[in-house]
Amino acid sequence: MPVHPIRDVAHVGYVELLTPVLDESIRFFVDVLGMDEVERADGASYLRAFGDYERFTLKLTASDRSGVGTTGLRAASPEALQARVAAVAATPHGGEWSAGEPGRGDTYHFADPDGHPMALYFDSAPYEAPADRRPTLKNQPQKLGDRGVGVRRLDHVNFRCLDVDANCTFVRDVLGFRMSEQIVTDEGDRQLGAWLHVTQKSYDIAYGGLDKDGMPGRLHHVAYFVDNREYVLRAADIFLDAGAFIEVGPAKHTIQQTFFLYVYEPGGNRIEIISDTRLIFAPDHEPVTWTATERKRGQAWKTIMPQSWFDYATPADELPVEAGVR
Amino acid sequence: MPVHPIRDVAHVGYVELLTPVLDESIRFFVDVLGMDEVERADGASYLRAFGDYERFTLKLTASDRSGVGTTGLRAASPEALQARVAAVAATPHGGEWSAGEPGRGDTYHFADPDGHPMALYFDSAPYEAPADRRPTLKNQPQKLGDRGVGVRRLDHVNFRCLDVDANCTFVRDVLGFRMSEQIVTDEGDRQLGAWLHVTQKSYDIAYGGLDKDGMPGRLHHVAYFVDNREYVLRAADIFLDAGAFIEVGPAKHTIQQTFFLYVYEPGGNRIEIISDTRLIFAPDHEPVTWTATERKRGQAWKTIMPQSWFDYATPADELPVEAGVR
Amino acid sequence: MPVHPIRDVAHVGYVELLTPVLDESIRFFVDVLGMDEVERADGASYLRAFGDYERFTLKLTASDRSGVGTTGLRAASPEALQARVAAVAATPHGGEWSAGEPGRGDTYHFADPDGHPMALYFDSAPYEAPADRRPTLKNQPQKLGDRGVGVRRLDHVNFRCLDVDANCTFVRDVLGFRMSEQIVTDEGDRQLGAWLHVTQKSYDIAYGGLDKDGMPGRLHHVAYFVDNREYVLRAADIFLDAGAFIEVGPAKHTIQQTFFLYVYEPGGNRIEIISDTRLIFAPDHEPVTWTATERKRGQAWKTIMPQSWFDYATPADELPVEAGVR
Amino acid sequence: MPVHPIRDVAHVGYVELLTPVLDESIRFFVDVLGMDEVERADGASYLRAFGDYERFTLKLTASDRSGVGTTGLRAASPEALQARVAAVAATPHGGEWSAGEPGRGDTYHFADPDGHPMALYFDSAPYEAPADRRPTLKNQPQKLGDRGVGVRRLDHVNFRCLDVDANCTFVRDVLGFRMSEQIVTDEGDRQLGAWLHVTQKSYDIAYGGLDKDGMPGRLHHVAYFVDNREYVLRAADIFLDAGAFIEVGPAKHTIQQTFFLYVYEPGGNRIEIISDTRLIFAPDHEPVTWTATERKRGQAWKTIMPQSWFDYATPADELPVEAGVR
Repeated sequence: MPVHPIRDVAHVGYVELLTPVLDESIRFFVDVLGMDEVERADGASYLRAFGDYERFTLKLTASDRSGVGTTGLRAASPEALQARVAAVAATPHGGEWSAGEPGRGDTYHFADPDGHPMALYFDSAPYEAPADRRPTLKNQPQKLGDRGVGVRRLDHVNFRCLDVDANCTFVRDVLGFRMSEQIVTDEGDRQLGAWLHVTQKSYDIAYGGLDKDGMPGRLHHVAYFVDNREYVLRAADIFLDAGAFIEVGPAKHTIQQTFFLYVYEPGGNRIEIISDTRLIFAPDHEPVTWTATERKRGQAWKTIMPQSWFDYATPADELPVEAGVR
Repeated sequence: MPVHPIRDVAHVGYVELLTPVLDESIRFFVDVLGMDEVERADGASYLRAFGDYERFTLKLTASDRSGVGTTGLRAASPEALQARVAAVAATPHGGEWSAGEPGRGDTYHFADPDGHPMALYFDSAPYEAPADRRPTLKNQPQKLGDRGVGVRRLDHVNFRCLDVDANCTFVRDVLGFRMSEQIVTDEGDRQLGAWLHVTQKSYDIAYGGLDKDGMPGRLHHVAYFVDNREYVLRAADIFLDAGAFIEVGPAKHTIQQTFFLYVYEPGGNRIEIISDTRLIFAPDHEPVTWTATERKRGQAWKTIMPQSWFDYATPADELPVEAGVR
Repeated sequence: MPVHPIRDVAHVGYVELLTPVLDESIRFFVDVLGMDEVERADGASYLRAFGDYERFTLKLTASDRSGVGTTGLRAASPEALQARVAAVAATPHGGEWSAGEPGRGDTYHFADPDGHPMALYFDSAPYEAPADRRPTLKNQPQKLGDRGVGVRRLDHVNFRCLDVDANCTFVRDVLGFRMSEQIVTDEGDRQLGAWLHVTQKSYDIAYGGLDKDGMPGRLHHVAYFVDNREYVLRAADIFLDAGAFIEVGPAKHTIQQTFFLYVYEPGGNRIEIISDTRLIFAPDHEPVTWTATERKRGQAWKTIMPQSWFDYATPADELPVEAGVR
Repeated sequence: MPVHPIRDVAHVGYVELLTPVLDESIRFFVDVLGMDEVERADGASYLRAFGDYERFTLKLTASDRSGVGTTGLRAASPEALQARVAAVAATPHGGEWSAGEPGRGDTYHFADPDGHPMALYFDSAPYEAPADRRPTLKNQPQKLGDRGVGVRRLDHVNFRCLDVDANCTFVRDVLGFRMSEQIVTDEGDRQLGAWLHVTQKSYDIAYGGLDKDGMPGRLHHVAYFVDNREYVLRAADIFLDAGAFIEVGPAKHTIQQTFFLYVYEPGGNRIEIISDTRLIFAPDHEPVTWTATERKRGQAWKTIMPQSWFDYATPADELPVEAGVR
């Protein structure tokens, strides 16, 4: 148990995805996932799920390749922001300030050891629903999503990396996340995966595995949450008729026991629809460690995972064979 | 057990609703319930749920009042159609033939003893989904409904009447329905409600109670089915944000144990969203009889029903107070 | 469309499973699936799901091997029973009468062309719940199952066979089932699978595929129904902690679009937990035909099926490797 | 936004209920709710839900009346415990130390201004599942609950009181909870209800309303969580057949939008089965304030609440009429 837990980061506030087919990606997130576009600026689209309290949680940026851009972390207070920026600046991974995304205040940009761009900010104008999105009950940010899947909120981001230990340590020691579960070699000498949380959800950022191609800064997936497992099944039904590429799921992870469904957005990035996320209330929660051998047991219900799920990450030059040519 | 069960009627094929605000009613069924409009003719709109195999199951007809028009019954074969028409014609309730609704063949129109218009037909052109509704799997009529509630199929119609016995007898003896449940007076001398089925669902047409105002030919509700109880709850969430009038539910009926939610469409007619419909496979199923006293136990989980649910039927001059002025 | 549909068989009334470990099998069905044992006779146990209206739907019989015994079909009436017995007797597959199972009347035993034992009966004493199983509402046979999975009712049986066409034709022409879906060779000259129904569920008996080992009379699985897909997921969670062998699922079939989960009972027979069964109300429903090539698309959400699901059938000398040694 | 949020209390660790019929109460929590009894000491029973990480979360104590005993709060660390004890001791509500409940360390006992007994502790031996409860996956404390309702974990406690402002202020300022929602008079001069949280669930302790009888220290309800709304519906089905008194629900609250079902345990205390609890991640979340007039809108879907839900609290001399004589 950490004697002095750092609580300066409140939660993951947004993720930026890069897409070579911006318009198609927007249509996927709006028409199929049911998100709302709140703003479009040169080469970028800002989107929100109906339960997100900030203006947006997803930024789509036109690019020549797929991949992940900045992962934005909201600090718990102005003081907390300064404290974390100072901590980052004291490492070799220090960055610089810039004006924030629309509706957000000054933002400090840096990168994790693997090179995934990250940002810290605090000021964030709350979302004001326009007339046609105004909810009946005032304790929700906008009307329930009733188009397509209707995802509720951004849940987490899962990176590939070249050195899990280094990134896990950075996120834990410098940013104040705690580790809830990990995979280690049978000898216990090296991490093969790590799940970290800063909220009471059991993970907010994961380094789920080593990059198979030895490329730094790659993304495994970004996850959006729906309220229950039936809604994940309904998402699969909707993806089926929408012609989206379902990679695997719905099924249940062994690690974290969350209920998952993986699909690719048109830009080639993997998206997870997730439910049954677990909460950790124990102040002295001990991380759960799985060895590589234990990991071979597979998913909770023995779901057979396609090879692409282990190997594919973005940016990527091509999609897995099963996903067809875009 | 009937020695010679009549199986000439296959199922309820469509229901016609009368509405003084046709455009608003169409918007409700399309945008909120998620149905598709397949045709519009002078003063009428034809709509379908995504799982209906016939072209339409709901006809909305502009009228000066709310209420129910024709309930269409599809016969099991051309011969079955002739047999049932002959049976109806032999009663005082005989009617006449006319050209069918769009996509349907010649239709015999008559009325039940209470005056609810009914029709018998057999020929029915199967639904051909247009390109943007074509499903991925060919064993479903069209893409899954992913807009609003997304109801799957027409389920049943529930009438008010002045004499339950007379109507129940007519539908059973002349049309070949079987009765699955009923409410009778404590003395057992009179029916207070009757649920009848011609499919293996436990009811397709109900005379759920006596009309409180002594008006013949009125409607209590028309029901559309969703796959599970969670989807009924989701419907309630959607109605809440859509500003639709939720009368009562979601909750569980004692009679038939179906899971219900009652809402009013803008024309003033009551619509039920239903799930957990029961199936009857027993060839010698005995009707379940509830006395008026037993009925006072209320709904399965003791849900308190508003007075309007007992009293309100359409056509009606005004909505219940709780429903607000349209 | 059949001009004169035969409706003499009402539904599948029971299935008999053979098990080399009777006590373990009983514990599985009682403790894990949540069924009730209603009677035990020498070497056999009779079990029911909470929603079954007959006394039992599963007979477990001690045997030296796994496999399927008799599949009992309840006729629609005494006359219907005589008519079907006469039809069977007129084929090379005729059998003989014997006294029925406990609570059931005289029963005619025969076999389908592949040698799966079948039986026809009509008389069936309705289930009378003992005091501790008596429900609060009288329109259900007993209290809801609240132990383990809590399956509601027997759903269907799926056989392996050496000649799908022959068995499908027998069940259709002689017993009066209708075919709802089938798999055929790309040339269309031979059936590779057939799904048949006699209720308005879309299948009650299936010949899901050819036996890989060329053994006649084998079983692929027996299915019990739960009310919704979430309950199938819950079943998987329960099987996980109970140490039962989950072969594959929960996931969605392409054929019939039912939601499935396959598990092995301790005797080695495959059991399916199923939900989202479809209903067919169209009197002129056309069978859906899938070619072998279309079949290669896989399950609805592309779930990877283990080889055992295609190959394993009972009786079997050994379990698939993945299932471990019993 | 509090500049210096206190984070010394981690979560509500247990609640003690007083019951005049201890054995019946135990049977209800074990057989119907599906909890496990982990220990019985003179006149008390200690119970846990399958997902609770501590040994127990419910203590049932034999008493001559119903009511609530101690609400135990687990501190975030030994230092946090000392800090909160010091803070309480500095108020007129200071208490004293005693040995903890089984498996828990030294505990500081005090009471809120209304007189509800409370306790602070830190040391807590983690639950070690016995062999027959050991889970297959090591990231859960024990096997999934597969008996009866199968509640997952303690969720919250809701008190009646004579002065909401005073108690809300105490819990907020002295214990470090934050308020997420409240009801105030139309004039805004007085609180009529307050919901407070110390975890990221949107409430852990509520003072839901003023006591109608002017009695201090009374309980409205204790809530246990299930994973989804379907499981709340299933709980209602189980309560129906178990003969438990369902007061109201399942339905959706306007305040907090949680999905509820209220039932009475045999001792007379009200128990809530809850799902769809909301999470608050915003560090600057503003409390939502409802006026008495707004409150009259009722529950989210307009569910009619019985008078007992507003009036009944424990200890009570008698049950509401509807609940029958025990």
